Amino acid sequence: MSVPYLINSAGGYIPASERIPVIARPFVSERAKKTLDLVERFVEEECIPADTVFKQSLGETTVERFDAHPQVIEDLKAKAKKLGLWNMFLPSNHFKEGAGFSNLEYGLMAEYLGKSATASEATNCAAPDTGNMEVFAKYGTEEQKKRWLGPLLNGEIRSAFLMTEPQVASSDATNIELDMKKDGDYWVLNGQKWWSSGAGDRRCQIYIVMAKSDPTNKNVYRQQSVILVPADTPGVTIHRMLSVLGFDDAPHGHGHITFENVRVHKSNMVLGEGRGFEVVQGRLGPGRIHHAMRSVGAAEKALEWFLARLNDPAKKPFGKQLSEHGIMLERVAKSRIEIDSSRLSVLNAAIKIDESNAKDALKEIAEVKVQVPNMLLDVLDRAIQAYGGAGVSQDTPLANMWASGRTMRIVDGPDEVHMLQLGRNENKRGPALLKRIEAQKEKSRELLKQYGLKERDVLELNRVSGGKSKL
Amino acid sequence: MSVPYLINSAGGYIPASERIPVIARPFVSERAKKTLDLVERFVEEECIPADTVFKQSLGETTVERFDAHPQVIEDLKAKAKKLGLWNMFLPSNHFKEGAGFSNLEYGLMAEYLGKSATASEATNCAAPDTGNMEVFAKYGTEEQKKRWLGPLLNGEIRSAFLMTEPQVASSDATNIELDMKKDGDYWVLNGQKWWSSGAGDRRCQIYIVMAKSDPTNKNVYRQQSVILVPADTPGVTIHRMLSVLGFDDAPHGHGHITFENVRVHKSNMVLGEGRGFEVVQGRLGPGRIHHAMRSVGAAEKALEWFLARLNDPAKKPFGKQLSEHGIMLERVAKSRIEIDSSRLSVLNAAIKIDESNAKDALKEIAEVKVQVPNMLLDVLDRAIQAYGGAGVSQDTPLANMWASGRTMRIVDGPDEVHMLQLGRNENKRGPALLKRIEAQKEKSRELLKQYGLKERDVLELNRVSGGKSKL
Amino acid sequence: MSVPYLINSAGGYIPASERIPVIARPFVSERAKKTLDLVERFVEEECIPADTVFKQSLGETTVERFDAHPQVIEDLKAKAKKLGLWNMFLPSNHFKEGAGFSNLEYGLMAEYLGKSATASEATNCAAPDTGNMEVFAKYGTEEQKKRWLGPLLNGEIRSAFLMTEPQVASSDATNIELDMKKDGDYWVLNGQKWWSSGAGDRRCQIYIVMAKSDPTNKNVYRQQSVILVPADTPGVTIHRMLSVLGFDDAPHGHGHITFENVRVHKSNMVLGEGRGFEVVQGRLGPGRIHHAMRSVGAAEKALEWFLARLNDPAKKPFGKQLSEHGIMLERVAKSRIEIDSSRLSVLNAAIKIDESNAKDALKEIAEVKVQVPNMLLDVLDRAIQAYGGAGVSQDTPLANMWASGRTMRIVDGPDEVHMLQLGRNENKRGPALLKRIEAQKEKSRELLKQYGLKERDVLELNRVSGGKSKL
Amino acid sequence: MSVPYLINSAGGYIPASERIPVIARPFVSERAKKTLDLVERFVEEECIPADTVFKQSLGETTVERFDAHPQVIEDLKAKAKKLGLWNMFLPSNHFKEGAGFSNLEYGLMAEYLGKSATASEATNCAAPDTGNMEVFAKYGTEEQKKRWLGPLLNGEIRSAFLMTEPQVASSDATNIELDMKKDGDYWVLNGQKWWSSGAGDRRCQIYIVMAKSDPTNKNVYRQQSVILVPADTPGVTIHRMLSVLGFDDAPHGHGHITFENVRVHKSNMVLGEGRGFEVVQGRLGPGRIHHAMRSVGAAEKALEWFLARLNDPAKKPFGKQLSEHGIMLERVAKSRIEIDSSRLSVLNAAIKIDESNAKDALKEIAEVKVQVPNMLLDVLDRAIQAYGGAGVSQDTPLANMWASGRTMRIVDGPDEVHMLQLGRNENKRGPALLKRIEAQKEKSRELLKQYGLKERDVLELNRVSGGKSKL
Repeated sequence: MSVPYLINSAGGYIPASERIPVIARPFVSERAKKTLDLVERFVEEECIPADTVFKQSLGETTVERFDAHPQVIEDLKAKAKKLGLWNMFLPSNHFKEGAGFSNLEYGLMAEYLGKSATASEATNCAAPDTGNMEVFAKYGTEEQKKRWLGPLLNGEIRSAFLMTEPQVASSDATNIELDMKKDGDYWVLNGQKWWSSGAGDRRCQIYIVMAKSDPTNKNVYRQQSVILVPADTPGVTIHRMLSVLGFDDAPHGHGHITFENVRVHKSNMVLGEGRGFEVVQGRLGPGRIHHAMRSVGAAEKALEWFLARLNDPAKKPFGKQLSEHGIMLERVAKSRIEIDSSRLSVLNAAIKIDESNAKDALKEIAEVKVQVPNMLLDVLDRAIQAYGGAGVSQDTPLANMWASGRTMRIVDGPDEVHMLQLGRNENKRGPALLKRIEAQKEKSRELLKQYGLKERDVLELNRVSGGKSKL
Repeated sequence: MSVPYLINSAGGYIPASERIPVIARPFVSERAKKTLDLVERFVEEECIPADTVFKQSLGETTVERFDAHPQVIEDLKAKAKKLGLWNMFLPSNHFKEGAGFSNLEYGLMAEYLGKSATASEATNCAAPDTGNMEVFAKYGTEEQKKRWLGPLLNGEIRSAFLMTEPQVASSDATNIELDMKKDGDYWVLNGQKWWSSGAGDRRCQIYIVMAKSDPTNKNVYRQQSVILVPADTPGVTIHRMLSVLGFDDAPHGHGHITFENVRVHKSNMVLGEGRGFEVVQGRLGPGRIHHAMRSVGAAEKALEWFLARLNDPAKKPFGKQLSEHGIMLERVAKSRIEIDSSRLSVLNAAIKIDESNAKDALKEIAEVKVQVPNMLLDVLDRAIQAYGGAGVSQDTPLANMWASGRTMRIVDGPDEVHMLQLGRNENKRGPALLKRIEAQKEKSRELLKQYGLKERDVLELNRVSGGKSKL
Repeated sequence: MSVPYLINSAGGYIPASERIPVIARPFVSERAKKTLDLVERFVEEECIPADTVFKQSLGETTVERFDAHPQVIEDLKAKAKKLGLWNMFLPSNHFKEGAGFSNLEYGLMAEYLGKSATASEATNCAAPDTGNMEVFAKYGTEEQKKRWLGPLLNGEIRSAFLMTEPQVASSDATNIELDMKKDGDYWVLNGQKWWSSGAGDRRCQIYIVMAKSDPTNKNVYRQQSVILVPADTPGVTIHRMLSVLGFDDAPHGHGHITFENVRVHKSNMVLGEGRGFEVVQGRLGPGRIHHAMRSVGAAEKALEWFLARLNDPAKKPFGKQLSEHGIMLERVAKSRIEIDSSRLSVLNAAIKIDESNAKDALKEIAEVKVQVPNMLLDVLDRAIQAYGGAGVSQDTPLANMWASGRTMRIVDGPDEVHMLQLGRNENKRGPALLKRIEAQKEKSRELLKQYGLKERDVLELNRVSGGKSKL
Repeated sequence: MSVPYLINSAGGYIPASERIPVIARPFVSERAKKTLDLVERFVEEECIPADTVFKQSLGETTVERFDAHPQVIEDLKAKAKKLGLWNMFLPSNHFKEGAGFSNLEYGLMAEYLGKSATASEATNCAAPDTGNMEVFAKYGTEEQKKRWLGPLLNGEIRSAFLMTEPQVASSDATNIELDMKKDGDYWVLNGQKWWSSGAGDRRCQIYIVMAKSDPTNKNVYRQQSVILVPADTPGVTIHRMLSVLGFDDAPHGHGHITFENVRVHKSNMVLGEGRGFEVVQGRLGPGRIHHAMRSVGAAEKALEWFLARLNDPAKKPFGKQLSEHGIMLERVAKSRIEIDSSRLSVLNAAIKIDESNAKDALKEIAEVKVQVPNMLLDVLDRAIQAYGGAGVSQDTPLANMWASGRTMRIVDGPDEVHMLQLGRNENKRGPALLKRIEAQKEKSRELLKQYGLKERDVLELNRVSGGKSKL
């Protein structure tokens, strides 16, 4: 059956490419527009209906759930490949392996992927593989690429990025302390990682691990290295899976993993000893944009569910349909404003990356990293409230989306860290601005003299205190 | 003396044209960039220092203050004209009389004008004249244009737009009821108007007045007409001036004006009888974008003052400069995010108007009408709080900016009206979305069958209540 | 081992009774104070440690989890009974069956019960049994009391209150439509209910059901009746269990229950035909206060966990312990303010009920129904953010508390319904206030005359528009 | 004419004493109740109508406005004295000079005083005189009392407290640096003060001044002294008056005052050299409660105006009266909740002071210092928005109230300082709480063993990474 994207009040269809914000249009090629429209249809017609199937294919016990690999996802992948919707994420200006789209163009597509739980994996655009593939493509040796990047690009295996640790404040990555010591041609790893997203899937075969290789280096940004650890290396154990507000996100999941004398060959080093921060920073920029655009899509979906509820003819509290309650319409309007504004922020950041690189777009990326998840949560909260009990239950996708959205305020650095960084950078302009304001005041004083005016304010009530005015 | 725009931490200068958000750049001509840089310098070096002079040139009594016309503003106007900074507001795609810029281009300039109390008038880009000139240019007869548009474009006279009335809920313009009756070749007006901004200035010579000419018309949007009333017409009295949170905004001001048998010739009619709403709607779109961009500039200025305070070496509460307090940096970051995001919304709306017209950009205009003033107030509130007592006093521009900003949430329709309209339009998609979600659910059910799955959730605990499970 | 309540900075102990807000003290008996201190110790030393045990005693599959009845809860119940901590909830002014405390006194205890997942059941003070026991005590026939109230008071069985239905907008209870038809001495029920909390527990033996017995009654508040349905009545099926943001709340749970020709004898009617609304309203008042005080306790617990994290010596982002980051301290302060203020609101409402009844305390109850859950969510959000990944995971109680707290904004009527009711009642004063303000203005005008003053404001700028001032 | 307090929907009258929150009633004597009812009538019937007269009695120029002393205020004072409404503020447990009310009792009255611009002065309960009289009563020598306290208690003169300075961050009072040097029997003062509230009134005869007498004292809290400076001492000049968001608050006002070799005899020292902080702290506690209750009254007044507007039959946007718009009712409800909750916080703090002293109520006072002004601004903002243009203009009291309310977030220490202090104090419990949580976890582990359970969560997915599960 057909599930068209019905956008206008008459039920008419306006394709995604025609709904691109006008300000972003000069940056989108005709090819990207065509792909974008395909993405939307694929998501709405194939992936969203498949989401339920995927979820219900999982078992009930933890082991069952993490061992599952529903057939439906493989069928979707086959369809996607056939449609040419594959690996759209790899930015055209940096990698030849991808589909040749800019970050902006892929960002527009990522918005639609964010509306489905299966769409990103179906198109091989799922985190953390996307970021990991970028790492391989950017920093990997030929051997590393052959061994891991190829299968990843083909969607044959999956991967995880192991950074956060439970025993330290990982929001400050210089605290990362998984021990990594050289032993001949090998590195030996000991310690633990958690929030290793994707590690739950049994197809996850490779871990990219940040560890402390040089704990006494005076430059705290040179103490860590990033190294590849195959998931089946002896000594690696998935201790347990973490839940996110009650959801286990199986079979993908978030692992708590222990390392006990884990030995990997030195050829597994990425980029070079002590260059862990470089790898991490190179990886995070575009990924945050992808995440952000998926979140914009999620918010858009939440608003769509919200609007659907407002118009459900069966739901009439106090004799009026919900859409006739002004409070609800105000919340729709707020959501509309916040989503549209956030989208522009992400698109602008994507273009900044496209035209230069992630480092130059530091400010723009940090901004959307904070703005978008908070916006998503606000929109979701309104939709949940409109649904009442259904909103927090398994009967709508809202609760699960809320859990994921809440987590986005923490992963890849909590809001506070990004705001501190943003604030500090912005603050650097302070002394210059103080000087400028002083210069403007000085010029005002000169002008006052020139126009024969006294500084009125400063002499307003020149009287001896308590007595009569002397003016 | 020189007051350069010091933007980077080293005190270095980056011209305004290079700080245009990357996403907006394709829409800005080289000529506009050059003008933009000129505007910035003119505002920072000439207008802001002159603001204080303008304010201190006014007297103390109400009559003195509204009769004042400080010389400094005429001097600024002369400078602006010489620099070619004149009438930049008239959109190039609609009018030949303007400077030939698009709404987007002028929007970028308006941001800087919004940083000064004198800059808009100095460049003949001040409200309400800008909107009024658009009305003349768009709808005026040749005679009307000659008599009023010429002097307005030259900055010789000023004008007011009289719409709001005190005795009705003017947020719903169909309530406007100033009486207007035909008497031969004349119309006779009776009633009152308030918030007639600009009417305080004694150079204000022409009022564009909305009045009820056809009270029984079944189409409530055809009951009103817009007509020109010269300010010195007998029967017109400025009853009093309204204050805005304690500020009188002299000599511009906000008038409360009474009409007592005011007779104007029928040739003063604008566009035609019963077409008042057309005139009003044609006028408001671009004007709201201008206002919004000025507000973005005001917010940027507030942030600059905020940053200056954080770095004032004399202000060290609890042994640390304010910039070392994390709370302050977080507020800076929030402000940065909100300003940047709002700016993109306005620019996108401006482009939408440029590429089509204000009517098609209804959604985008309503969004920024709500988003921007609220953002401005949040940023101002943080800056005020950082300044303490100085923040609410006459020693910073913040208090006055707050008063104006607060009013922006009311003028041209309060937030609530725009949100209701936005919400209602958005809600029209609801029934179609409900249908789509139902179609997706139906497809899920088909797929579940196809994959041999039962609807797990619906049959989860199939037991007779209270008894043992039967599964 | 001992787990004292360490309240002050020196680690010293201040018993709960000494931390009662000073304003509430006159309302608390010595006996209640002693019991309160016992409650606190019982919760902190016995129940909270048992929470983890309870949770880990449950199985993994849905059936296992809802069939479970962990021994630890029975052991806690035995301890509680021995300590005299049993049925404290039944208000002394209405029932002889309870422990003899006022709503205020029990409210103070409920705060501590709210800090543990097991404490309420351990002391036989768990919802929905508490409200249900009130229904039996207040409206039950002798036979109904004997059959159900006795075992409930002894903690032998559990109960559920079935009101909400999935197919209508249950936020407006007049929409409740489960069909209930007379057939001789029997009533026959057909339809469905959901959010039947507590129905998951296999000890749940009795349902109190609201159904539509008189659908054509002109008084919409007389169409419903409340009737008792034993859980094992043929035709009753627990269709499935609902989840709350990913949590199943097993074995208690939230049931979706179907009724198919369910026959119950007419002696099961509560209070009388068509009096369903009376029963519901009589039940909800004090229950909302209990819920609210538990939420205050939950918020207090969240703040305690927040404070613990701030002082965890292992967590030092950016070289400082979290407690040295001003942003965190500001959030602590906000939380402190909001919790303390909310507590006073609840206590005041409790006293209002004690001194009169729930109906007279309508305003106060609605206020806390809205205020407290929102406050709880704000406090929890801050604590979660401070914990980062641990905050959303199973490693802290915060995520589960958040899910429950979020649901509190929906159960027993969503925020919006209570605010609408509050707003409407408050609005009734409007016309009288309008009159008063007019009277005050009139008196002002008289006084102005009396003091020889003209109405300055109204005549401020009496000039012919655009001309010179005439003053 | 009569202006009764119409409280219920039928226009009926319920006296203030019957509207005291039930939780506070045990603390209010019959005498206080009678006075409270008198206060309410006096405020509503006499003071509020006089507010307009007072305002319109002032002139237009700065000098005129600050030299004014409208007769109406003296007439009100005479009436108040006759009614026995005089000096109610002096707490009965500390001073014999007052009317014999507790802080709680006076707090209840202060709420009503806060609804009028003239009521506080009319009853001799106006800041800063109240705090200053407390200083005299508490710390003054007999001579000082005779000279200043007597006339102040009689309402013959007024006073100011000079603390804040423009050139330092006064939010941290240790920065106060007005120079004060001994010269024989005299102290010589040099420097400047601002925000010297009340100094504008020419009846203001005495300044209580905080200055730095011992700049090198190692204890930064012993460097300052408080000394009396008669307003007409040579060398004292009121430099100018500060405005508050455009309002000059004449004739009371906020002075910027310079000291040039101002000599005062050593007998003017208050309490003793180096004891300035003691004086300041002793002064602020109850004063903050008074301010807070006046703000509660102001919020209540704002809500009353809001409700009046909702019911103005002339104001019907979009065909419905404002009270029929759900958005407005929601805002009314929010306001109701916030006001009622804040009131309880203030009353609880007042009782805490009554039962002990301001120092012991440090937490409670800081809480209301932050909570109440923010609440007031939120309520005012909603009322202003409902009024539209009238809300920001001189036609309602709302704009002026907003300006004063905004300032309350800064005076007597900005929000941030109080929150930092609150947060720090609360944080002291952190280490003890961390210990307790650890003890609870330890006990959980013991119980798990005891019940034969393994730590399920910790061993959930014990598989070698990437391989098949081993469970």
